[in-house]
Amino acid sequence: MTCHVIRYAEPMNRWEPDARSRLERAAWELVSEQGFAATTVPQITARAGLTTRTFHRHFSDKREVLFAGEDVSTEIAELMATTPPSTDALSLIVDGLVALADSRFEGRRAEVRTRRDVIRTDAGLRERELQKQAAIGEAVRVGLMARGEPATRAALLAETCVTLLNVSIQEWLDNDDGRSLADIITATLESLRSALKPKP
Amino acid sequence: MTCHVIRYAEPMNRWEPDARSRLERAAWELVSEQGFAATTVPQITARAGLTTRTFHRHFSDKREVLFAGEDVSTEIAELMATTPPSTDALSLIVDGLVALADSRFEGRRAEVRTRRDVIRTDAGLRERELQKQAAIGEAVRVGLMARGEPATRAALLAETCVTLLNVSIQEWLDNDDGRSLADIITATLESLRSALKPKP
Repeated sequence: MTCHVIRYAEPMNRWEPDARSRLERAAWELVSEQGFAATTVPQITARAGLTTRTFHRHFSDKREVLFAGEDVSTEIAELMATTPPSTDALSLIVDGLVALADSRFEGRRAEVRTRRDVIRTDAGLRERELQKQAAIGEAVRVGLMARGEPATRAALLAETCVTLLNVSIQEWLDNDDGRSLADIITATLESLRSALKPKP
Repeated sequence: MTCHVIRYAEPMNRWEPDARSRLERAAWELVSEQGFAATTVPQITARAGLTTRTFHRHFSDKREVLFAGEDVSTEIAELMATTPPSTDALSLIVDGLVALADSRFEGRRAEVRTRRDVIRTDAGLRERELQKQAAIGEAVRVGLMARGEPATRAALLAETCVTLLNVSIQEWLDNDDGRSLADIITATLESLRSALKPKP
């Protein structure tokens, strides 16, 4: 049954090679213009020039389409598996975050800010955002354990990786002072070290 | 309308002073015995000796009743507001976590383990758990900002507070080696400091 569905879906995709990204772009345009609550799936498909049926082949609902390009778990797993074993866990995380900042965030500040503002308006989107962050943390944790890190250390570094990313993005969005997200990430790590210093 | 509902609810509560905790206890008994999916609201109310109507006066659904005793945001806000301003943020967090460990966790390991295992079985419960953790982080962040911490530092320490709690609880549940959760929390902070040390 699953096989049948997959075989059936393939030829359709050949005619809509960029359906996912067209739907995602249309959805973001609409929620930016009129808000998440007022945006419907038929509006999204109309804007994208596609059918509702095509929409549902790619996404379960209007919440999911907004997170279409957000799955970095596969990239994380790949990075973890291909980085030489001699690279220590912290360097791997910082280098990975800096690469992510440059490839996915830099130059897109207005877009990322809109994204944050839209997510804040809706409980369902906030929930989905939390899930995404948990998935990133889990991918990092599993990758670090596969590289031989002890369980507690892997869990600590994975959650801290998500913290560094979150806090740095907020800072980058709130302070338009010309610093790159990559620079903010390394500065945030320094702030965390300083905040955790034992008090005399 | 809201006033009417509140006034109406009050006299009922006088006859069921411990309805919330009875429903919570019954719900946990049932999900431990038969799983979350198989447990229904009528089963919970029957076990608690209460009506479905009473259930819905306290909880929106069977997911919520399992998190009845889990709201620590008020306690956090109180602790943040009453701790002398001279106490530094990190000490406040560590002392708060240790106090929480002793008051809410110690001596309840089997129960907490069951809770974790049940939550793992259901996507909706995992989502709710993420929300709870986010709410704890947010209460800590807001409290730290009110105490004068700069925004980035408050955000970093708040998320790290949640990380320390999460990772320590997992360790405490996975290693039945006699260490208290409070001891594990201070050891986890040490591990985090060591994991974040700059590499030579």
